[in-house]
Amino acid sequence: MGTNDSAPRAPEIVRIPFDELDREFRRVLVKNGFDPGKAEICAGIFAENTLVGVNSHGINRFARFIQYVKDGLVKPEAEPLMKNKAGAIEQWDGCLGPGPLNALHCTRRGMAIARESGIGCVTLSNSNHWMRGGYFGWEAAKAGFVFIGWTNTIANMPAWGAVDRRLGNNPFVLAVPFEKEAVVLDIAMSQFSYGVIESHELRGKQLPFPGGYDQSGRLTTDPSQILQSGRLLPIGYWKGSGLAILLDIIAAVLSGGESTHNISKRHAETAISQVFILFDPSKFGEGSSIASAIKTIIEDLHESSAAADTKEVLYPGERLTRTRLDNLASGIPVDRSIWEEVKSL
Amino acid sequence: MGTNDSAPRAPEIVRIPFDELDREFRRVLVKNGFDPGKAEICAGIFAENTLVGVNSHGINRFARFIQYVKDGLVKPEAEPLMKNKAGAIEQWDGCLGPGPLNALHCTRRGMAIARESGIGCVTLSNSNHWMRGGYFGWEAAKAGFVFIGWTNTIANMPAWGAVDRRLGNNPFVLAVPFEKEAVVLDIAMSQFSYGVIESHELRGKQLPFPGGYDQSGRLTTDPSQILQSGRLLPIGYWKGSGLAILLDIIAAVLSGGESTHNISKRHAETAISQVFILFDPSKFGEGSSIASAIKTIIEDLHESSAAADTKEVLYPGERLTRTRLDNLASGIPVDRSIWEEVKSL
Repeated sequence: MGTNDSAPRAPEIVRIPFDELDREFRRVLVKNGFDPGKAEICAGIFAENTLVGVNSHGINRFARFIQYVKDGLVKPEAEPLMKNKAGAIEQWDGCLGPGPLNALHCTRRGMAIARESGIGCVTLSNSNHWMRGGYFGWEAAKAGFVFIGWTNTIANMPAWGAVDRRLGNNPFVLAVPFEKEAVVLDIAMSQFSYGVIESHELRGKQLPFPGGYDQSGRLTTDPSQILQSGRLLPIGYWKGSGLAILLDIIAAVLSGGESTHNISKRHAETAISQVFILFDPSKFGEGSSIASAIKTIIEDLHESSAAADTKEVLYPGERLTRTRLDNLASGIPVDRSIWEEVKSL
Repeated sequence: MGTNDSAPRAPEIVRIPFDELDREFRRVLVKNGFDPGKAEICAGIFAENTLVGVNSHGINRFARFIQYVKDGLVKPEAEPLMKNKAGAIEQWDGCLGPGPLNALHCTRRGMAIARESGIGCVTLSNSNHWMRGGYFGWEAAKAGFVFIGWTNTIANMPAWGAVDRRLGNNPFVLAVPFEKEAVVLDIAMSQFSYGVIESHELRGKQLPFPGGYDQSGRLTTDPSQILQSGRLLPIGYWKGSGLAILLDIIAAVLSGGESTHNISKRHAETAISQVFILFDPSKFGEGSSIASAIKTIIEDLHESSAAADTKEVLYPGERLTRTRLDNLASGIPVDRSIWEEVKSL
């Protein structure tokens, strides 16, 4: 009674314990052809991504991931294969296996090479969406490594000055160890993702900053206008456009894999290319002196004078670390209908 | 007669042939303690930076560079020294030598390591301003290498949500070979440099996009307001702020050198830290197949539908390549008063 069906309804949130979420993901993965070992790792990544609050690349994406498995786009039985090795760089073929498993494998290979050579680079072709790139940065940084990695994607953003989507938003991840956690930056080259724009539209909200163009070519904060034009704004205008172009070229060239242009000829995003560069800083300094150098930088950042509209100045990954602890203690907030969908898979 | 002294005057532009500019820089460098070999390389970099239209890090910066030499901040006789080597990564101490010479040295070391190991990383501490980072990307890419490099700087930009400047704008360079030229992105993490903001103020012009905040904390395109608040805007808001933080941490940790926080304790920008990562793609593919992969991406970009306010969609470095050819043919446009100043040094 009194419900207005035309108004967007706020999703009902339930809090699910990490273990329950993890178990449920694992069950569905095994049911869909993952062997128990792979199901455990893959479920752990989806659960962790949800735990840290990135539901868009955790639980909210899980049903679509399973659909890709059913459609044969993601092959649960595929193992990555080394194509080439030269010194401190290796080229792997992801064989269209699960993106998170391939990316984790390459991160760990990069760490192994870096332990030998100070630096290790692993490139990956023919992989699938890695979900949240920050996961792999965190994995490396918590083990004491510096991580630089990125992926290309299907075309979803016009180049600077263009109206048609020919660039990927090519998420880029940088991570370093910090105390028992890490400083991790995980950013796409579009100012806002489609997910964020769509959720603002659903809630009838404007974006906090211009996120794209309307159909007459003016920058706008209106999510509906941007979804209509399809002209998402790159970060820093021409700068993010240039970053997206170069990250795509380097990923395709070093991996011998597909560029955004070629990926976009398919009907779904698959056969993407990724780069993982790992550094072992312990080769060049005491762990304690490295930790103290990083601490000094973070302390200086924390001493910033906050602007009037800002509560505190945080380092990349700081809020996520807090969310993780909160959600471990109180359960992970998820949309009830999405949770029901996962349970029905 | 009729001159209005209160109005900003447009600088008088003269066109100087490359060789004349190069010779003049060389003369001044030798006069200020550079041996002929180093003077030749250093003059060539300043001349090339001016040739491609980046006068701010070419002729317009030359007198200040010489002043730093006179003040003992830049030591013309210093040679970079290898501090550490582990596998494919080397740490060098720039010994406060000329930034462009140190950076060129490290780029070439990185290429030599990459020829052996597929990838080579050289980190540099205690260096000075490299002037235009793109120069080194171009150097590597024209020799067939993929280049990723960056520098930290003195603090010149507030972190996201802060009002006081604690981050460097930490220019970041990505470069790949392309036909006989290169695709080169060279971007600072601030949306606009102080140089660009100041030149807009001088010409009484608004910035094309918001470049910082006014003193009441609103985003503005007004250069005077931004110079008053000192609150430059990072590219992509929180994203560029995060990039600046991570690039600084990684440069300081891998080089064992100073972070922006420590550099900023000095009265002038010196003892900066840099990273040079070089890849030799020929280890993994025929030159022709690599070239054709890059060409396909650039051709796709060029086929973009241009927005109504855009003449053509260009790749990073494309305009610079054209400017270079124009200026080689017609002489390099420089401000007459700055040219006179160089001749008087």
